[in-house]
Amino acid sequence: MTDPTLRVRDLDETELLARIVPLLPSGEGIDVGPGDDAAVVRAADGRFVVTTDVLVERRHFRREWSTGYDVGHRAAVQNLADVAAMGARPTSMVVSLVMPDDLPVQWVTDFARGLADAAPPAVVVGGDLSGGDVVMVSVTVHGDLEGRAPVLRSGARPGDVLAHAGTLGASAAGLDLLTSGAASPDDGAPGVSNARSPFVAAFLRPDSPVAAGPAAARAGATAMLDVSDGLLRDAGRLALASGTDLDLSEGALMLDVTALVPAAVEVAMATDDPDGAGRARTWVLSGGEDHGLLATFPAEVADRGLPDGFRVIGDVRTPGAAGPRVLLDGEEPEAATGWDHFRP
Amino acid sequence: MTDPTLRVRDLDETELLARIVPLLPSGEGIDVGPGDDAAVVRAADGRFVVTTDVLVERRHFRREWSTGYDVGHRAAVQNLADVAAMGARPTSMVVSLVMPDDLPVQWVTDFARGLADAAPPAVVVGGDLSGGDVVMVSVTVHGDLEGRAPVLRSGARPGDVLAHAGTLGASAAGLDLLTSGAASPDDGAPGVSNARSPFVAAFLRPDSPVAAGPAAARAGATAMLDVSDGLLRDAGRLALASGTDLDLSEGALMLDVTALVPAAVEVAMATDDPDGAGRARTWVLSGGEDHGLLATFPAEVADRGLPDGFRVIGDVRTPGAAGPRVLLDGEEPEAATGWDHFRP
Repeated sequence: MTDPTLRVRDLDETELLARIVPLLPSGEGIDVGPGDDAAVVRAADGRFVVTTDVLVERRHFRREWSTGYDVGHRAAVQNLADVAAMGARPTSMVVSLVMPDDLPVQWVTDFARGLADAAPPAVVVGGDLSGGDVVMVSVTVHGDLEGRAPVLRSGARPGDVLAHAGTLGASAAGLDLLTSGAASPDDGAPGVSNARSPFVAAFLRPDSPVAAGPAAARAGATAMLDVSDGLLRDAGRLALASGTDLDLSEGALMLDVTALVPAAVEVAMATDDPDGAGRARTWVLSGGEDHGLLATFPAEVADRGLPDGFRVIGDVRTPGAAGPRVLLDGEEPEAATGWDHFRP
Repeated sequence: MTDPTLRVRDLDETELLARIVPLLPSGEGIDVGPGDDAAVVRAADGRFVVTTDVLVERRHFRREWSTGYDVGHRAAVQNLADVAAMGARPTSMVVSLVMPDDLPVQWVTDFARGLADAAPPAVVVGGDLSGGDVVMVSVTVHGDLEGRAPVLRSGARPGDVLAHAGTLGASAAGLDLLTSGAASPDDGAPGVSNARSPFVAAFLRPDSPVAAGPAAARAGATAMLDVSDGLLRDAGRLALASGTDLDLSEGALMLDVTALVPAAVEVAMATDDPDGAGRARTWVLSGGEDHGLLATFPAEVADRGLPDGFRVIGDVRTPGAAGPRVLLDGEEPEAATGWDHFRP
């Protein structure tokens, strides 16, 4: 355990790196790792997949709620999910960390541990450290298509089944538990917080079924995306890109809603708002940041059995006169809003 | 020209992207560009080079001095130089931009133009936008080794010549011109500022001899790095990695010093400090952010002629009892300091 009073400003960049680098995942497929001007990563497939995302303190996380471990884990997962959603296996990542000079060194080593626990099989091959007034994290993840075509958003065909792997609404439930005061972020051990409410954990440190992405591609998924902005909104993107309707089954989603009812009751009690069950359904349909995978498969694939983790939640239909859209049991859903960084 | 009163908060993310994306470089070698969960980039070589860097407002640039164009250009160049320093040709990049909601949209489109002008032959294949209290830019650039071995820092051998491509000290001269008040950042046109002092331009919007990197690799360079932290400091890294001494020739560097004397005189006059010539030499030896390429070549390559842009500035020697180090005409240089983000 690092001395908790040690701050980033007490170390120079070399000393700080010496504490971080041994914690980061290393492994195969890397010709040149950190330490030169750039890394060299193998791409036997002759292509690589790449995606990038940034997390900004006070916009995407609060340090009062999220530990360094949480932020490192989340920064990795949200990018790993995007690579998986192309049907690729994550291979490598580069990570930049901007931090105030009074940030505890323990926060930074926790960050590295969270990153490392989320990253396998991807390896950290480089990065950058800088000072700044708030913590900012930028992660770029690369993946290997292993000879397969990428699974795009645009490949769904009428007659396909719509399936989902991962959780729906758990992250939104965790956020509402925290904001309502029904749960505390540190109901668990400091740093790793394994004893937290599973909903709070889903919000602060989401997991993604990363291995399900390449498995879906191998099974013949026709379209796929990472559900980061809510099921309805992201399903709408897949529908639009594919030029199809997607019809979600309320019955299939009832499983997800039911799983959230205990959290909805806790929030209802904390806020004196009796509409608990309704809230659980909204979390499932519109809650973001769960990083599950939404995919379409030919019906015959579903008949043989979907890859581990996927469950049918609807089907793909020929669009009507209204153009490609998302339906709930054949009906237009009530208005559901998304998320915009500049119009929160 | 965008309405100068239009702010980032006046547009949603889709509207902002619609203004940025058409400005970004697109081109060959990309199987899937922006718009899906991730991009797919070709890597015919079976490997790719990757590097990342972050620029933070008030740490790396001031918006009073740097236009959006400057920041976009610089963010691209500092990463392109790292890829070039491996002997690779830049192919693609991903870019994240964090911005306050009152940032003018014109700043963002200028940023995209600066990036685009610096990027070729690299293509922008993805990115992320987020809100934040200050502007932060994170760029990850990929490169193609085109079948060659990467040129590492560790390959210099006694008997090699030491050569440099690009400018030395011009960026540091520009910084001192600005801080002394001898020059103004907006001595040129708004946005692009082509009429600026060349030193101020070198500081605010550095260029790098990117094409000289792959050319050096083809010519047989034994070691190479990007000079971003000053000649002495970066030469020291190459010496240490290679286990050799590097002996710099004051005579060869006199050309670089002479080029900076007019700037040194301007600073001397603005600060009432008569030590002009001394300052020019310090800029050349210790000034950072020029992003030139320092490389070693076998003597026979130098005899045949170095690649375009490279000039011999010293040679590689067997280290003495003191271990690998940098010398000036055979002598230990006076103490020269580097740069540390947490101990400025």
